[in-house]
Amino acid sequence: MSALVEFAMFPTDQTESKSAFVARVLDLVDRSGLPYQLTPMGTIIEAETVSEIFAIIEEAYEDLQVDCNRIYSVIKIDYRKGPVGRLQKKKASVEEKLGRELNG
Amino acid sequence: MSALVEFAMFPTDQTESKSAFVARVLDLVDRSGLPYQLTPMGTIIEAETVSEIFAIIEEAYEDLQVDCNRIYSVIKIDYRKGPVGRLQKKKASVEEKLGRELNG
Amino acid sequence: MSALVEFAMFPTDQTESKSAFVARVLDLVDRSGLPYQLTPMGTIIEAETVSEIFAIIEEAYEDLQVDCNRIYSVIKIDYRKGPVGRLQKKKASVEEKLGRELNG
Amino acid sequence: MSALVEFAMFPTDQTESKSAFVARVLDLVDRSGLPYQLTPMGTIIEAETVSEIFAIIEEAYEDLQVDCNRIYSVIKIDYRKGPVGRLQKKKASVEEKLGRELNG
Repeated sequence: MSALVEFAMFPTDQTESKSAFVARVLDLVDRSGLPYQLTPMGTIIEAETVSEIFAIIEEAYEDLQVDCNRIYSVIKIDYRKGPVGRLQKKKASVEEKLGRELNG
Repeated sequence: MSALVEFAMFPTDQTESKSAFVARVLDLVDRSGLPYQLTPMGTIIEAETVSEIFAIIEEAYEDLQVDCNRIYSVIKIDYRKGPVGRLQKKKASVEEKLGRELNG
Repeated sequence: MSALVEFAMFPTDQTESKSAFVARVLDLVDRSGLPYQLTPMGTIIEAETVSEIFAIIEEAYEDLQVDCNRIYSVIKIDYRKGPVGRLQKKKASVEEKLGRELNG
Repeated sequence: MSALVEFAMFPTDQTESKSAFVARVLDLVDRSGLPYQLTPMGTIIEAETVSEIFAIIEEAYEDLQVDCNRIYSVIKIDYRKGPVGRLQKKKASVEEKLGRELNG
C-alpha cells in the first residue's frame, strides 16, 4: 500500500511571513524519517498508510496551536494498493507516455 | 477550539457511480454523532480537535480499501481557537456583513 | 454539461476577520445569476462550463487585489457530461443509496 | 504580481491508468512557455495573473472532454503582489528559516 499525501498548512491570523511557521512544520516532517518532497505549494509525504501521515499533521497542529489562533490546511491524498516508491516514479511515468522529457 | 473539516473521498478505479461509496462514508460520519453537513462537493464536520475527525477519515479508508484499489481525497481544515458551533454561523456572518440575505 | 465548482478564497495578509472579504466575493457570485450554495467552507456554483465560473473567480481576484497583497484560493471542480441541476440532486442520491435520511 | 497555481486534473470515469490523460495536460502546460514544476501530486505553474493560468486549465478541459465523461480537478492558488520567480525561491526561504538543509 502507498499513501501519497500532499499538505499545505499555515496560520491565517498572522500578517508576518508564513515561512517561519512552514519551517517548523517541515522540521517535524524531516525528523519523521518518511520520504517527502517540499514543493512551492506544499509538502508531499509517502507512507504505507494514511494514519502514519495523519499522525505527523496532528503533531504539526499541536505545535502551531501554541502560537496561532487560526490555522488553515489543505490535504490531498492519493492512496493506492501496490508498492511504495511513487514519490520518484510519477514524473518518469508521464514522460514515458509523452515520449519526451518535460522542462518542468 | 473548533476544527471545521471538509472532505471529499472517492475511488478512482471504479467506472460505476461513486455515490454508493460516498454513501458508505456518510454512514460512518452520521453514526459518529458529530455535527456535520453534506454538500454537493463533500462533507463538512465540526469537532473540538482535528484528531477526532481524522479518526473518522481513517475509518472510512479502512472501509473503502476492502473494495477499492485506488482512493482520492481532498481535505480542507479551518481550525480556530474559540467555541464550536461554526457550522451554523458562517452564512449568517456573511449576510450580516453584506446587509442583505443571499439566494444560495 | 455540468460543472460543479466549489471555491474558497481569502486574504492571508489581513489579521482582521476574513468575512468582510468573503462577503464581497459572495456579492459577485450572487449577482452572477448562476445557481450557487454557500457552505461553511466555501461556495459551490453550477454552470454549463468551467469557463463561466472561472470568469467569476477572476472578477473576485480583481476586486480583492485592490485591498489585499496576498490571497489564497482552493478550487475543486466536478465536471460531468449530462444535465445541470446537480446542486440539488447529490444529497438525495446518497440518501437513496443508504435507504434512509441523513441528519446533516 | 505573481500567481502560483497548483492543479491536479484527472478523469474519474476511466479505470485504466490516469497517466495518459495527465500526459496530455502536461503537454499543454509545457507548450504554454510558462515556468512550471511537475510534482507527484500535481503541476505548479507561475504567471503574472490568475487569468493566464485559467486559460491553460480551460484548454485542458476542452482537450479531455473529447474522451472523458467526468473529470475532477483540485486547484490551489497563492497570489501575491511582488515579483515573479517564486517557483525557485520557496524551498530556499524555508531552509534559511530553519538554518539547515532539508532532505526532501
